[in-house]
Amino acid sequence: MKITLNHYTPLLICADAIRTCWQSFDKSDEGGEKDKELIDRVGNKFKHASTLEHLVYNFYIEGVSRALLQELARHRMASLSVKSTRYTLKELKNEESFTDKDGERASKYLVLTGVDMVDVMSIKALENLRLVLVEGISNDKAKYCLPESYKTELTWTINARSLQNFLTLRSDKSALWEIQNLAHALYDALPEEHKYLFSIKEPA
Amino acid sequence: MKITLNHYTPLLICADAIRTCWQSFDKSDEGGEKDKELIDRVGNKFKHASTLEHLVYNFYIEGVSRALLQELARHRMASLSVKSTRYTLKELKNEESFTDKDGERASKYLVLTGVDMVDVMSIKALENLRLVLVEGISNDKAKYCLPESYKTELTWTINARSLQNFLTLRSDKSALWEIQNLAHALYDALPEEHKYLFSIKEPA
Amino acid sequence: MKITLNHYTPLLICADAIRTCWQSFDKSDEGGEKDKELIDRVGNKFKHASTLEHLVYNFYIEGVSRALLQELARHRMASLSVKSTRYTLKELKNEESFTDKDGERASKYLVLTGVDMVDVMSIKALENLRLVLVEGISNDKAKYCLPESYKTELTWTINARSLQNFLTLRSDKSALWEIQNLAHALYDALPEEHKYLFSIKEPA
Amino acid sequence: MKITLNHYTPLLICADAIRTCWQSFDKSDEGGEKDKELIDRVGNKFKHASTLEHLVYNFYIEGVSRALLQELARHRMASLSVKSTRYTLKELKNEESFTDKDGERASKYLVLTGVDMVDVMSIKALENLRLVLVEGISNDKAKYCLPESYKTELTWTINARSLQNFLTLRSDKSALWEIQNLAHALYDALPEEHKYLFSIKEPA
Repeated sequence: MKITLNHYTPLLICADAIRTCWQSFDKSDEGGEKDKELIDRVGNKFKHASTLEHLVYNFYIEGVSRALLQELARHRMASLSVKSTRYTLKELKNEESFTDKDGERASKYLVLTGVDMVDVMSIKALENLRLVLVEGISNDKAKYCLPESYKTELTWTINARSLQNFLTLRSDKSALWEIQNLAHALYDALPEEHKYLFSIKEPA
Repeated sequence: MKITLNHYTPLLICADAIRTCWQSFDKSDEGGEKDKELIDRVGNKFKHASTLEHLVYNFYIEGVSRALLQELARHRMASLSVKSTRYTLKELKNEESFTDKDGERASKYLVLTGVDMVDVMSIKALENLRLVLVEGISNDKAKYCLPESYKTELTWTINARSLQNFLTLRSDKSALWEIQNLAHALYDALPEEHKYLFSIKEPA
Repeated sequence: MKITLNHYTPLLICADAIRTCWQSFDKSDEGGEKDKELIDRVGNKFKHASTLEHLVYNFYIEGVSRALLQELARHRMASLSVKSTRYTLKELKNEESFTDKDGERASKYLVLTGVDMVDVMSIKALENLRLVLVEGISNDKAKYCLPESYKTELTWTINARSLQNFLTLRSDKSALWEIQNLAHALYDALPEEHKYLFSIKEPA
Repeated sequence: MKITLNHYTPLLICADAIRTCWQSFDKSDEGGEKDKELIDRVGNKFKHASTLEHLVYNFYIEGVSRALLQELARHRMASLSVKSTRYTLKELKNEESFTDKDGERASKYLVLTGVDMVDVMSIKALENLRLVLVEGISNDKAKYCLPESYKTELTWTINARSLQNFLTLRSDKSALWEIQNLAHALYDALPEEHKYLFSIKEPA
């Protein structure tokens, strides 16, 4: 899994948004410690959570499974543009056949779980999908035998309020293991000066 | 695929919502032809689309694939509660093994595409998943070798504005074949007197 | 202030939505105590708050001020259709003139605060607005001298998740006095069997 | 009215988001003409409108009336932090009294309509509000006699999809005159290279 933060809103925009309410712009220190404390106090402690929506992060997420995507997409206060199986499955056509022992080569296309039996079954499904595509069957039909371990990537745009909700719920030890990893990787990819706004549970 | 409409808001609620703006309640015919014409005129033709949000439909959707679910979940102005693979995969454990010829029995668990080769690959993946579960591997790992043809079901709550958007985009012939079918099935499940609010493209 | 609940989703719809995830429909008691406990446990305690979105309430709210409306409209996970000053201000034209002592008659149009000086100023503004309208000036210009105490009414559709957020924030003693009153009135208008899902702060 | 665009997402982020679906990053010209054409084709012509949500604008809006704010706040796919009457009304206390002829001085606080009679009534209401505040009455009660012409300012964060909806609806000649002006001023404040994504109706 690889996370790239392609763009984000500076903290000062959020501090100024909060200062709009009180018209206290003269107290700003241009995104410094006073502004940071203000954002935490109003946005988090006072629960004016809407002020955190002015901060928006544009992530690029690579190497996650479509099993994870099923859960990620339920966070509806976010915008996502995803690598389309309907448009891109042909990438498999030019591969050599995969045998059960080709885990490393297959991991270009699959998220492996570390449980051998599951991973072998995923590789079998990958090979079967490859055969289907070589046969010239359209992506729209072929994709039905795709295993959910198949890797995808996406552009994911989310504001700080919604990201707080995501990180809290998905870093919890009751969450799916892969999305716990994603939560931590997203947190790590945040700008250092933004991290204090988010709390994340320690990995199990 | 089977669609059940479990609950919905009567048209009168929407007509009255529109009449709120003009305070023209005395012109209502209690959800009759005048009210219906008003909803269409204001909500559709005058583009006061927010007035259509007062109409909410609670659907139960059965027998669609997780491939379709990937697309359905992108319609973020809706609420969905989905059969969880994390909680329910054990259902497979008690099945006899599936061979390539067990399409009919497998169709309890799989959306078949009508393309033999794809369907056989789905059945193989289903059998492999069954073996993984019999081995006692946890759902959270096992689900990674699940084929996207695996059937799911969900409670889906959506308002008329968002449903218009869904039906227009997803009945289009450029949409995935299964979601085109869903669009038509949802339309068919609407209350007769609500159908005039929605336009849907003819099946290909 | 007067609240009417015109329509709402039965609890059973929400309980069934939750049972979708576990496919535990056979444990339902058709919206009875077991189902109610389930909704509270999953939707509230387990923080699967999205399951509460299947419950939708259509309220009609009368006799609140446009000052309150400014705050109400900030709750964006809701749908509102509001009595339009642009369409309805002519209602004032046929009134006799208002003097400072006409509080009772003026209260048809104004939310009074109980602070005499403020209420007198509101009545003066009401009378001035009336004069402007009698002069034949268009609503789109006349409405600029409207006092925010002017009464409005609206159809407000909101799901249980968003209503929880509203009631918690707006019944707080730091909230505007009128919206505190609204929070309590909305709570009182809920179906008795739904109230347990919501917590509300005691009036100051 | 004064609009400042404090921050925005570069077009390249949106082009790359679209290229995620096809994995066609190698065709990008880094936000140049090819990328711009792609955004227009996919986001507008092909109606994949969600791809436009990756572009977010942080505006600061000054000198608009609270009458306009009532309408602005109905655009719920946006985030707004507004100058609070509850926190800032004391600003009026230190002013000299306003007479009907003090339009210019009053225009620091009021949006004037150009219709003398309305503007005079607004000034009377402003003076009355000032008197109430001088009397020491709390903002939470005083604000009820505030005229809707009272000026406010806000930080407004909105994505390109929602802004398209706003500009189309609010530049229409049937919209309130002040919000038509706002629509044009927002459009003018957009980065030049973003303007081609938006269509706006000519001022009446």
